[in-house]
Formats: sequence, C-alpha cells, structure tokens
Amino acid sequence: MNAPEIDKSSPAAVRRAIRDGRFTAFTADVAPGFAQGNLFIVPGQWADDFARFCERNSQALPVLGRSEPGSPHIPSLGADLDLRTDVGEYMVFRDGELVATPTTIADLWQDDFVAFVLGCSFSFEEVLKAQGLRLRHQEEGDVSAMYVTNRPTEPVGPFHGPLVVSMRPMEPADAIAAISICARYPQFHGAPIHIGHPEMIGIDEISQTYGGHGFTDISDRELPVFWACGATAQIVAREARLPICITHHKAHMVLTDLPVIAAPSAS
Amino acid sequence: MNAPEIDKSSPAAVRRAIRDGRFTAFTADVAPGFAQGNLFIVPGQWADDFARFCERNSQALPVLGRSEPGSPHIPSLGADLDLRTDVGEYMVFRDGELVATPTTIADLWQDDFVAFVLGCSFSFEEVLKAQGLRLRHQEEGDVSAMYVTNRPTEPVGPFHGPLVVSMRPMEPADAIAAISICARYPQFHGAPIHIGHPEMIGIDEISQTYGGHGFTDISDRELPVFWACGATAQIVAREARLPICITHHKAHMVLTDLPVIAAPSAS
Repeated sequence: MNAPEIDKSSPAAVRRAIRDGRFTAFTADVAPGFAQGNLFIVPGQWADDFARFCERNSQALPVLGRSEPGSPHIPSLGADLDLRTDVGEYMVFRDGELVATPTTIADLWQDDFVAFVLGCSFSFEEVLKAQGLRLRHQEEGDVSAMYVTNRPTEPVGPFHGPLVVSMRPMEPADAIAAISICARYPQFHGAPIHIGHPEMIGIDEISQTYGGHGFTDISDRELPVFWACGATAQIVAREARLPICITHHKAHMVLTDLPVIAAPSAS
Repeated sequence: MNAPEIDKSSPAAVRRAIRDGRFTAFTADVAPGFAQGNLFIVPGQWADDFARFCERNSQALPVLGRSEPGSPHIPSLGADLDLRTDVGEYMVFRDGELVATPTTIADLWQDDFVAFVLGCSFSFEEVLKAQGLRLRHQEEGDVSAMYVTNRPTEPVGPFHGPLVVSMRPMEPADAIAAISICARYPQFHGAPIHIGHPEMIGIDEISQTYGGHGFTDISDRELPVFWACGATAQIVAREARLPICITHHKAHMVLTDLPVIAAPSAS
C-alpha cells in the first residue's frame, strides 16, 4: 500500500508530512500563496538582542513571528505549527560551529528557547511571477544565487556579520517592475539593495556563489539585481558563538499559513 | 526705481511676472513644492484624440488638467492661470513645422482651442531631492539629458511618434530608491522605463542628447536611469501635422498651484 498522497497546496498538510518524515524535499515549490520563513532559535537570554538585531537589519531579517519563551509554537503563523519537527532540516550551531543537520530538534529543545521566523525571498518571487515577471533561475530549475557582501550588518549584542544577498538576473524593465513591487513588501526583504555593479558590494566574481549553487549567467540584456537575504542569519549564527543556536538548513523553510498577498506590511 | 521683487516661492506671483514680462528665465528653480507642467494646445476637433493618446501613453503624458473648449483657463491648476500669457515661451507649429517661439499666444488664441497640461519631471526631481537623493545634473547646473528612443508611442488618430526619455545618472542605491519613490507618482511620469543598457532603447551614443544639452557623464559607480518624458509631445506636435498646435518651449513650463506631494495619484 502506498503512503497517502500529500496535498502540496496546503501548508498544514506539508507541515504534517514533514513532521511524519513523508516529505523531505526543499519547500520552494509547495504551498504556493503562503509565506515561508527562515528559522532562528536562541536561548531566551539573547532573544531581545536578536529581536533588536532584526529590527536594525530588517531588510535581511524581517520578523514574521516570535515564540513565547520555551514554546515551539507561533500560533499566528499556523495553529498546529511545531517548530521542533515541522522543518525538513535544521542546522545546530554550538559555540559557532555547525555540529549537526538533523531532521528534528525535539530532543534538543530547551525550555528557554525562543524561535523567530523571518521573511523569505520565496514569497516575493511568487508575487513577481504573479505579475508576469521572468525568474530565469527558476526556469533553469535552480534557486537564486547568494553572495556574501562587504556590507556589515548593524550589530547588536553578540549578533553581527556581513550582509548576505540573493541575486536574480533581470531585463531592465523587469528589474524596474520588481523594485517597485518589492518595495511594497518589507516583510519579504523589501526593495533590492543593489543593482548593476556587483563589485560595489564586494562581489568580485559573480560565478562564486555562497553555498555553491544557484549561479545564473547574466546576459548583455540583463542586470544583476540583489536583495538582502535571510541567509544573513546563518553567518550570524556562526559569528555570535552562542552555546547553542539553531536555524533551518538550506531551502527547508518554515511553512506558514500567512497568505503572501495579505501578509503584514510595515508600509 | 527698480521693478518690484518677484516672490519666486509663489507660482501665482511668478505667473504674474511671466505675464508682465518681468520673469523670462527657465522655471526649473521657482515655486518649489508646486507641480509644473508641459503645455499642449490643439484645435477642439483633435482634443479627444489627444486625450486618448495621453491615456495610452500616460507614462510620458500624464494629464494634470484640460481646459474647456475655447477657454485658456484650467481653474483646478490655478484660479488666475491664463495659458495665453503665463508661459515664458511657446512653440507654434503649423502643418508640423515650428514657425515661431513667441512669449505670448494671446493673438493666436482660437475659440476652439483646448489646452492640456501634462506632468513634468521637475516635480519628481523635487520629491527625490526631498528624500536626500543626489541629482548630479542639477549639481552641475544643468537640466537632465533627453533622448529620442526606438520605442514607438501607441498612436491615436494623428498623434504618433517615438518615446522621448530623460536620463539621470545615479548610484545603484539611489536608482533603487528613485524607482520605488517615482512608482508612487504616476502623475509625474511614474517609475523609470529603463535602466542600465541604453542601446536596448535605441540610444547608441549617450553623449548625443536630444536638444543638445544636459549630458552628464556616467561614472563606473552609476547607472543611467531613463524616465518617459513630456518632451515626447513636442515630436508628436511635428508628426501630427495639424494646421496649428502649440506647446511650451524648452524649460518654460506651466506653473500650477498643485502641491507636489498632494498631487492626484492613480495608485
């Protein structure tokens, strides 16, 4: 007998499937129309510092939700959401070292943990596609390229590190439309932070991506467009050197029940 | 005895001074905070065609106001505004030929004339400066460069011709901010129509500007940003070959009492 079919249009159904080990892939293609998020978990004594760090670097780290101390739930993002089990893969950092990439953190959960879910580029990519814009990296079956820039984040407490960006090559008219549209979605990184001259943000070799995937060739008719990226938090997790800190791994995002179009906007 | 001082902060005061021949300069630096406009006057039989032409090409030709047939007044733009006398210099076209550039058209006014006032880039430049963006052409004491593109306007009746654009060199972060901001001001040309690759819109030599002024060198740290421009109407005035058609000349714009920030927005 086959496993039951997963309703991939439903974030709750995919969360259950992840929890049960029936869904193990990247989340880029599931639950369209619902916001996905980056995960960042810290012991409570650093939670307020991290919250302020997110505020000061909100283009990279826009907070969609924060748990109560000790709670793995954020009801505003999904009634049944359990952040110990509903992410496909986690990264566990101890003293700044990546020590494991487990598929559950139920055994590691501490009663002082505070979890943050941060907006993700998958959401604005959906908005852009709905507006008819081309996302060539998706046509080529890849996720967007990422780069570590020479721009520092604004530090708070132990949290600091360089800004990480995602890049999409776009024809000029699409780049302009993407900027106008994304400016209205601060909860999903907002407007791009750079366009056209990668060397100005410390990217000397466009083929050398962070994480080693997602390079898309840039044609004579395109410009590279750069958005602040939630992956910034993964470098921060290393640099902060906390006793423990947990994030999602790669494109295994937190699936929320927040509709993309109606997600809360600061504007 | 000297002529009375002109209160250059007041559009009404400058209009009176233009009317009386006491102010003859470009209007770029006067009445900050109030919208200025391009002027286009046609005999009534072509007014509805021109209105539709503006609608279909609204990035270049956003209508701020339209007079009643035979009236040189548009009260919504200024209680005392008289379009026969309140523009510093006019261009008079007959059968598509520029035949005169007078300082008044009171003697040419026809009882079937309909006047259109169209949004102008001076207004969005004010908004951008107020947001702290650099406009290097202004720092260099010039108006922005203009170019004729290879993009056709969408024709209506006798009205057709290529899109004319204005160009401002900007650092990437300023270009992104300008795009986000201008997208909210459709009445002042809205978002740029192009960025970065002039050859894609038929501009092969960036130093060859339309009208021959306003070239600003583009540095390695800048991108050329192109907006649809009201000067499109001046080429249209030639191409339409109407028996008579009148526009403003160069940067002698219509001064209105519309505050720039509160000007009507389609968004």
